[in-house]
Amino acid sequence: MTNFQLHPRLQQDCFVVGRFALSQILMMNDRQYPWFILVPQRNNITEIYQLNEPDRQQLLAESCLLAEKIVEIYQPDKLNIAAIGNLVPQSHLHHVARYETDKAWPSPIWGKFDACPYAEQDAQMQIDRLRVSLQDSLID
Amino acid sequence: MTNFQLHPRLQQDCFVVGRFALSQILMMNDRQYPWFILVPQRNNITEIYQLNEPDRQQLLAESCLLAEKIVEIYQPDKLNIAAIGNLVPQSHLHHVARYETDKAWPSPIWGKFDACPYAEQDAQMQIDRLRVSLQDSLID
Repeated sequence: MTNFQLHPRLQQDCFVVGRFALSQILMMNDRQYPWFILVPQRNNITEIYQLNEPDRQQLLAESCLLAEKIVEIYQPDKLNIAAIGNLVPQSHLHHVARYETDKAWPSPIWGKFDACPYAEQDAQMQIDRLRVSLQDSLID
Repeated sequence: MTNFQLHPRLQQDCFVVGRFALSQILMMNDRQYPWFILVPQRNNITEIYQLNEPDRQQLLAESCLLAEKIVEIYQPDKLNIAAIGNLVPQSHLHHVARYETDKAWPSPIWGKFDACPYAEQDAQMQIDRLRVSLQDSLID
């Protein structure tokens, strides 16, 4: 894990929220939707099934915890959770809070509209709120 | 599980491939992509995190097994795995084999193009091939 490198495209498009035991937690810099991404810190993994059994279990636990916290904080109408990776092969799992009133509803958001970056203080507020909510599970 | 009812939209758009211990396995009637869906046979579940712990684990195992078999059979460039459900709230998990040469690449497929139904014998051939591959894990 020490030599794990986040894909440059994820580095560029996202803020780092923190780390679980397995995954980095990112927030996409797009204020159109509450949009968080888990990236298992394992090299050369493009698909979830390529993780070993303990890592699969850990990713599931981290995904479910993140999902619950997103629902608590943002009260969405629906969650959209997806491993796509057609452009960024490094395995990463999207978690998006969707509303019937959001711009892309009911379509999925990927590839739909260009990102609208957050004002800096707004991004920090979202990150802080999620970090407080995840507190006991963050290792960093 | 005995009173589980598949959502009418999934019934209409998909073929039933078979059943794992937890999930029904469906194939979307769209020959543009190899596209399979797991539907946990639990009522009133819209999000994966709402499943209890043993069901979550079982869904993960079924998803990873299905993913491996899709890769073996179809040799895609990438898998796209997603729980969206903006139109069909009954929890279901898409597994799509993607190719750099497919019509929608690199976009996700959902909401992109209208489905192109299979010829009946082609659909049956896909279903049979996956059933043979999953044989030992099917309960039905």
